[in-house]
Amino acid sequence: MRATVMYAAGDVRVEDVPDARLVEPHDALVRVTRAAICGSDLWPYKSMEPSESGRRMGHELVGVIEEVGADVTKFKAGDLVVSPFLISDGTCVFCRRGLHSSCVKGGRFGFDGVDGGQGEAVRLPHADGTLVALPKGVDGKLMPSLLTLADVMATGHHAAVCAHVSAGRSVAVVGDGAVGLCGVIAAKRLGAEQIIVLGRHPDRIALAQEFGATEIVSERGEEAVERVRELTDGFGVDAVLECVGLEQALVTALQITRPGGAVGRVGIPEDESLPGGIAFWKNVSVAGGPAPVRAYIDELVSDVLTGAIEPGRVFDRVSDLDGVPEGYRAMNEREALKVLIEF
Amino acid sequence: MRATVMYAAGDVRVEDVPDARLVEPHDALVRVTRAAICGSDLWPYKSMEPSESGRRMGHELVGVIEEVGADVTKFKAGDLVVSPFLISDGTCVFCRRGLHSSCVKGGRFGFDGVDGGQGEAVRLPHADGTLVALPKGVDGKLMPSLLTLADVMATGHHAAVCAHVSAGRSVAVVGDGAVGLCGVIAAKRLGAEQIIVLGRHPDRIALAQEFGATEIVSERGEEAVERVRELTDGFGVDAVLECVGLEQALVTALQITRPGGAVGRVGIPEDESLPGGIAFWKNVSVAGGPAPVRAYIDELVSDVLTGAIEPGRVFDRVSDLDGVPEGYRAMNEREALKVLIEF
Repeated sequence: MRATVMYAAGDVRVEDVPDARLVEPHDALVRVTRAAICGSDLWPYKSMEPSESGRRMGHELVGVIEEVGADVTKFKAGDLVVSPFLISDGTCVFCRRGLHSSCVKGGRFGFDGVDGGQGEAVRLPHADGTLVALPKGVDGKLMPSLLTLADVMATGHHAAVCAHVSAGRSVAVVGDGAVGLCGVIAAKRLGAEQIIVLGRHPDRIALAQEFGATEIVSERGEEAVERVRELTDGFGVDAVLECVGLEQALVTALQITRPGGAVGRVGIPEDESLPGGIAFWKNVSVAGGPAPVRAYIDELVSDVLTGAIEPGRVFDRVSDLDGVPEGYRAMNEREALKVLIEF
Repeated sequence: MRATVMYAAGDVRVEDVPDARLVEPHDALVRVTRAAICGSDLWPYKSMEPSESGRRMGHELVGVIEEVGADVTKFKAGDLVVSPFLISDGTCVFCRRGLHSSCVKGGRFGFDGVDGGQGEAVRLPHADGTLVALPKGVDGKLMPSLLTLADVMATGHHAAVCAHVSAGRSVAVVGDGAVGLCGVIAAKRLGAEQIIVLGRHPDRIALAQEFGATEIVSERGEEAVERVRELTDGFGVDAVLECVGLEQALVTALQITRPGGAVGRVGIPEDESLPGGIAFWKNVSVAGGPAPVRAYIDELVSDVLTGAIEPGRVFDRVSDLDGVPEGYRAMNEREALKVLIEF
C-alpha cells in the first residue's frame, strides 16, 4: 500500500510500504477514506533529524473497517468510523475517568508498528476502545467536519473545557490556526458571550467571525494585552484558550486572564517552563494537554450531524495522497490553513 | 501604642508608633487580642534591605472593635472579630465571585497607612467587607484555632479547593509547615481517603498524623517521587497541595500528581517560572495563589466552633508582644512551628 513517510525536515514522501494487516486480536484494519495534515505535523517538518527508516505520518482519519480481530466486538467490516488521534483501550483507570489521552495501554499512529493516518490503510489497535462509529450513508458534505473530530475540533473543545468556558463568560482565543478556530466554535457552543480572537491572518479572521468571534485583536505582545483589557472593563477575560504553544503566546494568555480566570492550553509547549508567577498572584488556573478526544466525540458528533457546528470549514485545500508533500509545504508556508486528503 | 516594626533582615523591634485611629468612614478601630507570626513574615526576615522608616509587620489577628466609622453597618464597639490577612470591600466584581484576594479596593496590613497586625491595635479599612464576627463569650480555648482562620487554615483550605480534593480521593501535601498541616486538616475535612505528607520534622509529622495524614514520606526529590508512586499504584495522587513555594517543591508536586490530577499551590513562589511541561503531557491542572480567606471563613468557623477541626494546634509557642523578636528568631531557626502572640 502507499503511505506518507517523513525522512527529515522538509523531506516528506509518499511511497510503497508493507500492507496494513491485523496483528493483535483487538486490532481493526481500517481503509482510510479521508485524512488530514495537522499543525503538529509541521513540528517534525521543521526540525526532524534525518532518519534512514523514516517516520510514518498522520493521525487524523475517517475510514471504513475492512476486517476485525477476534476480540473486537463493537465493529464489523463495512462500518464507517472516525478515529481519535490517540489509541486507547477504553477500560483503564484513566479511560474510565475520561482521560483517554493517558490510557495505560495507549498508543500513537506512526509508532510501535502502528501505521500512520496519511496512508491507504491502518492497523488500529484497541479498536473497541478507540474508534467511534458514524451513521451509515451520512452526507458526504459532513465528512470534513466529522474528520475534525479526530483532533482539531476535539482539541479546541478541550481547551474550552480546561478554561472552564460556560454560559455568559468572556473568552479569548490565542491563535488563529485550525485549533484556535475550532476553539471559537467550542466557546460559542458552550455559551460564551464575548469571544475575542488574537490573530492576524485576514482569511482566518473572517472564518473566526463566522464561527462566532465577537472581536479581533491583531496586535501582539503588550499591545495585544492592552487591547484585550480595553475590551473587558480593564480586567481581562474569564477564560483563555491557548492554541499556539510558543512561550510568547502563553505569556500573553496569562496576562489577559482576569483574576480567578482560567487558561486552557492545548498548544504543544515550546518550553518546559511556564510563567507561573503571573498566574499565582491573581489565582489564575492553568490546565490542558493532549485532548482526550475519545471522551468528547460522542458529544460533538451529534452537533456535526445536525449541522449545528461546521468545523470542517477549517479545511481550505483538498489533496489526493500524492499531493501530501505539497500539502505540507503549503501549510508550512501558511499558504494553506489545513489540508484534507481524499482517497 | 506599641507595635512590631522590621528594619532589615533579622532586625525586628517592638516600639512606640502613632496610635491607630479611624481615618476613612469605612474603617473600624480594632484592639488586637491575639496575633501570630506567619511563615511569610520570615521572607523579609531573611532578605529585607535596610529601611530607615521600617515596615509594620503582622497580618493575622483576632480582636475587639473599639470604634467604627460612619459607613460601617455590620459591626459596633465590643464585637469580637477575626480578620482575613487581606482587606476587601466585599462588593467589587472579584469579591462577588468569591475572590476577595483580588478585591479592586483591597489592601494589605502594614502598607498604605494600614497598621500591622503584630501591634496593640489596627485601623481596619473596609471593615464591613473584611471582618467576620465571632460569637460573644466564645471559649478562650478556641481562640488559637479561630486565629488560624485569618490565614493558615484558610490557606490550607484554598490549596485543597484548588487541587479539587473531594471524597475518596488521594492527596499529597508537600510541606509540613503550618499551612501544610492545615492542608491536611482541609483534605480530611473534604473527604480525602489517602493523605500523604511529604515532610521530615518529627514533631510536625506527629501532628500531621493526628490531623489525618495516612502516610509520611520523608525522602526528598526523586526518592520522594518514587515513594509516593509506590503508595499509589504507581500513578501518583489525584491532588497535591503545594505549601512550600520553592522550585523543588513545585517540581515534586507536579511529578507526584497522576494524569488528570490537580496541583493546588499556595506556597509563595520562589521563581516566576514553573515546570509546565510536566503538567502538560499528563493534563495536570495547576491553580492557586493568595487565599480568598473571606470567602472561606464562614464555612470553616463553624467547624472550629464545634471542635470538628483544631487548627490552633499548629501554635507551639505563645509570646507576649515584647517577645515577638524572639518569636521571629525561633521560627526562622525552626525551633518553633508557629508563634501565637497574646496581648
